[in-house]
Amino acid sequence: MGKKVVIVGGVALGPKTACRIKRLDATAEVTVVDKDEFISYGGCGIPYYVSGDVQEIEGLMSTSAHVLRDPRFFKNAKGVVVHKQTEAISIDRKEKTVRVRNLVDNEEKTLAYDKLVLGTGALPFVPPIPGADLPGATVVATPRHAIDIKEKIAKGQVEKAVVIGAGPIGIEMAEALTDLWGVETTIVEMLDQVLPGPVGKDFAVPLKNHLEEKGVQVLVSEQVTKILGSVETGVTGVETTKTTIPCDLVVMSVGIRPNTNLAKAAGLAIGATGGIIVDEMLRTSDPDIYAGGDCVEIMHQVSGQKVHMPLGSLANRQGRVIGTNVAGGRATFSGTIGSLCVKIFDMTVARAGLTLKQACAVGFDAVSTVVSQADRAHFYPTQEMMCMKLIADRKTRVVLGVEAIGVLGDAVKARVDAVAALLATKPTLDVISNLEVAYAPPYASAMDIVNSAANALENTIEGRHRPVSVDEFVTAFETENACVLDVRSAVQAGPYMKRYGERWMNIPQENLSGSDVAQMNRKPLYLICGSGPRSYEAQLFLRSQGVDDTKNVQGGIKMMQLTFPEYTTFDDDNESPH
Amino acid sequence: MGKKVVIVGGVALGPKTACRIKRLDATAEVTVVDKDEFISYGGCGIPYYVSGDVQEIEGLMSTSAHVLRDPRFFKNAKGVVVHKQTEAISIDRKEKTVRVRNLVDNEEKTLAYDKLVLGTGALPFVPPIPGADLPGATVVATPRHAIDIKEKIAKGQVEKAVVIGAGPIGIEMAEALTDLWGVETTIVEMLDQVLPGPVGKDFAVPLKNHLEEKGVQVLVSEQVTKILGSVETGVTGVETTKTTIPCDLVVMSVGIRPNTNLAKAAGLAIGATGGIIVDEMLRTSDPDIYAGGDCVEIMHQVSGQKVHMPLGSLANRQGRVIGTNVAGGRATFSGTIGSLCVKIFDMTVARAGLTLKQACAVGFDAVSTVVSQADRAHFYPTQEMMCMKLIADRKTRVVLGVEAIGVLGDAVKARVDAVAALLATKPTLDVISNLEVAYAPPYASAMDIVNSAANALENTIEGRHRPVSVDEFVTAFETENACVLDVRSAVQAGPYMKRYGERWMNIPQENLSGSDVAQMNRKPLYLICGSGPRSYEAQLFLRSQGVDDTKNVQGGIKMMQLTFPEYTTFDDDNESPH
Repeated sequence: MGKKVVIVGGVALGPKTACRIKRLDATAEVTVVDKDEFISYGGCGIPYYVSGDVQEIEGLMSTSAHVLRDPRFFKNAKGVVVHKQTEAISIDRKEKTVRVRNLVDNEEKTLAYDKLVLGTGALPFVPPIPGADLPGATVVATPRHAIDIKEKIAKGQVEKAVVIGAGPIGIEMAEALTDLWGVETTIVEMLDQVLPGPVGKDFAVPLKNHLEEKGVQVLVSEQVTKILGSVETGVTGVETTKTTIPCDLVVMSVGIRPNTNLAKAAGLAIGATGGIIVDEMLRTSDPDIYAGGDCVEIMHQVSGQKVHMPLGSLANRQGRVIGTNVAGGRATFSGTIGSLCVKIFDMTVARAGLTLKQACAVGFDAVSTVVSQADRAHFYPTQEMMCMKLIADRKTRVVLGVEAIGVLGDAVKARVDAVAALLATKPTLDVISNLEVAYAPPYASAMDIVNSAANALENTIEGRHRPVSVDEFVTAFETENACVLDVRSAVQAGPYMKRYGERWMNIPQENLSGSDVAQMNRKPLYLICGSGPRSYEAQLFLRSQGVDDTKNVQGGIKMMQLTFPEYTTFDDDNESPH
Repeated sequence: MGKKVVIVGGVALGPKTACRIKRLDATAEVTVVDKDEFISYGGCGIPYYVSGDVQEIEGLMSTSAHVLRDPRFFKNAKGVVVHKQTEAISIDRKEKTVRVRNLVDNEEKTLAYDKLVLGTGALPFVPPIPGADLPGATVVATPRHAIDIKEKIAKGQVEKAVVIGAGPIGIEMAEALTDLWGVETTIVEMLDQVLPGPVGKDFAVPLKNHLEEKGVQVLVSEQVTKILGSVETGVTGVETTKTTIPCDLVVMSVGIRPNTNLAKAAGLAIGATGGIIVDEMLRTSDPDIYAGGDCVEIMHQVSGQKVHMPLGSLANRQGRVIGTNVAGGRATFSGTIGSLCVKIFDMTVARAGLTLKQACAVGFDAVSTVVSQADRAHFYPTQEMMCMKLIADRKTRVVLGVEAIGVLGDAVKARVDAVAALLATKPTLDVISNLEVAYAPPYASAMDIVNSAANALENTIEGRHRPVSVDEFVTAFETENACVLDVRSAVQAGPYMKRYGERWMNIPQENLSGSDVAQMNRKPLYLICGSGPRSYEAQLFLRSQGVDDTKNVQGGIKMMQLTFPEYTTFDDDNESPH
């Protein structure tokens, strides 16, 4: 008789664990139960099903060879028994049994286990506001939600939609609704930026601008207080702290919580984040019960704190670790560095580690810098600009986080993944300065943006580089009558000088003279160039000439274009482009 | 009086060092001498100038803001004095002076230094064969060579070309000649594969196939013994160990050697690789003389051996380190992991660390595996297959190298860069199994190819996975009457069964039964599927059923298509595609 393994949860972690166990131990008797009608689906693909990129919902539940991963498939191809629409209702840890109920016929039975695996996932958080239960107000946690939304749209019942929450899912859903279906979509976010968890505000603004450019209205620092409508009419609109927005569909994506009801009732230890506590081998407080995926808390390898990090990619990797351990091997899962990437129409954001705010909150003396650079050698004919932010601890110079935005998604993700790979090793800035990413002109610069970002941050920490963000600069420009020295060519600076008058001055960097600038007698003087390096060089030169009170606008005109396009867009045909 | 710094060499390392010094110490008096007419150019861009991607040679010598980096620019924008066409002819280490000669007027002078930096680069190796000095036979080391080649082609003087050497430069040059100019090009490589340094033969074959598909003839295991022609006619052809090839142009790219004449004459220590010996701060055996770039040897962080690694990206990063140290700081350069990527028409290869052969040669008990996987979630509508090879030490399971080929270059490079970032930390396979590359369906699978490759190699080392390469499989199929069990669907396997008869059998993986296969009584039985995982699963299942003598064809049909397209191409309209 083989080892009896029961797995609760059949989405990502459960099936991965089951298959790994069978590969290592063909004699194991592995049973998966899931209360849902759908199993083994790519949850992260839901927005792409709604958008139509994935045409059939079965696409999310099929193998790469287009075979449907249904119970029959698991039986035949994997030797795993799957009971869907079957809920695990209690665990008897002493007897080592799980009581399950078939939700179709309400039949109950008891499954004995030698090892039990909990992959119970997470539950979408439904905001406690009136109307959240109206028809047309929905979360997007399962394929069923996606099917319902797509059907409603396909029937022509959705002209306007409101998405509550500007996290990755909310944004992906807004794109799906707008892009294929032409639904007039508004995102309402309570906090003061989009993607408040993943990135700092300096990158959130360009992303918000891009969403709006693509037709999605984005309201930040605004909270939905009520969903309007009735059971008969369904949703007719939302009321926010500032306004009323008519709509036919409300998508609530304000976060998810670990689903630990079963674990809690069984007396397993639950952490402060609300997730099940597991050790490095992903064992719960009961060594015969493993848990992983969206229902557990794991170590954040940069902050050292326990976090809830619900990502399909982590669940899959954890599933393999649990599978190995259940089969008698010894594998460990060290934690997460919080890698994430999101496609937002024609832009991509990728990130890992801690944001500046998060780093400060956990006690680091954190400092950051932003650089702009092309994703190819500057002489290569096709290229796109990327912006990268690096966050480090001032004293130890350990890199704590990385964020990047840009047009070519694979190139953006490449840079973040390379830095992210090292985060758990606590790399100092000089490691990233010399990080040996592969170089060829069609794919990178000799000094890649990852190297440049580390160099810039080192220069900042050493006090050589005195940066301001474009946000700080614009505030000073608007409220303090601040003056700019544009060190690009006269042709490039021309339109800005024309529009902004004597507060926007120009001396190309190679023509700078300390005495000329000293005569300007503007304090502080904001230095700007196309992307940052020339104005940094100008800052150093001016300091050597006794002009010390300068600030370098980080990311230069490129970051200005992304963040304050109204400052850098010229309608006048006489004004030259960049 | 500021510190006097003399830098010999003005291509990559020299200018970088000079500018970094001036940024840290505005008082330093920095002089760069270079014997060439061109300075501060992107040498890796030369093939892209020849191809026409970069239209003007000045593009390779300009800043990203399109300012020409000539001596005037260095003077005005950087405060650095550059003497071009000025050769350093000797160093007096006692007096701390360098004797230089202006190559235009032959005037000599002596420059005093407090610190001297050698960035003398490398010299192209000219094969010692008759005719190597004929007009039309050229190396490609400087912009001058590129200009001469492009002029000759533009004048219509080149119908056929031979490239000697199938390294990155040789291949890039072959692409440049073929793609834009339609020159009938043949690459002749002495060793038995293209890119013999960077990748194993299993990936070299697909790349060779792709070159040939694009019209470049590639001859391996063949040596050019003589270049034919006369001073009057110029090159008319080459003679190889096997044949004669008529041509009007011969590009010799058979490697480069550190240029250490000046260092040697000054008595500086030279290593076994022929490069100048430097310490971690990039000081030579004379602490007042630094060296870096293509003229030094550096530590290979995987093999622990000193290597010559002439790459512009390393030179730039080393230049910054030297600049910091010369200016009184303390920066270190730990070595290289040999990252490289090359665009070859519509394919890209990226690699880092050691190849299997190199790893075995330095004493590792190295083992490798190849996996094929899509670069996006399998349900995402657009995707390309990639193939990745991971090399590890059997005993310690430390990852020693990574190679990848595929269509979407940025995606291929992303995977290699993420693994490469860790190579110097000696990561074990389980680190790569759980490597947290960012996941979103438009850019990756939940279980990315880097994770899959590590998992597959772990399974191989543990003896669960018994792989053969497509090469070994085809040899067995052709010479030993080997039999295949194709575990894909009947539709997919159909054309193969029709063509190859009873030796190509089909049972879809989910329908496998041990007794059926045992009855076949074929030993060994080669298992194949689309990319490898299903046939691996089949191998495990069959073993559990007592059928033990099976081999899994690594990378499956995908690697077959890339490596032996003649096996997988079906002209018959009745045969279905993949």
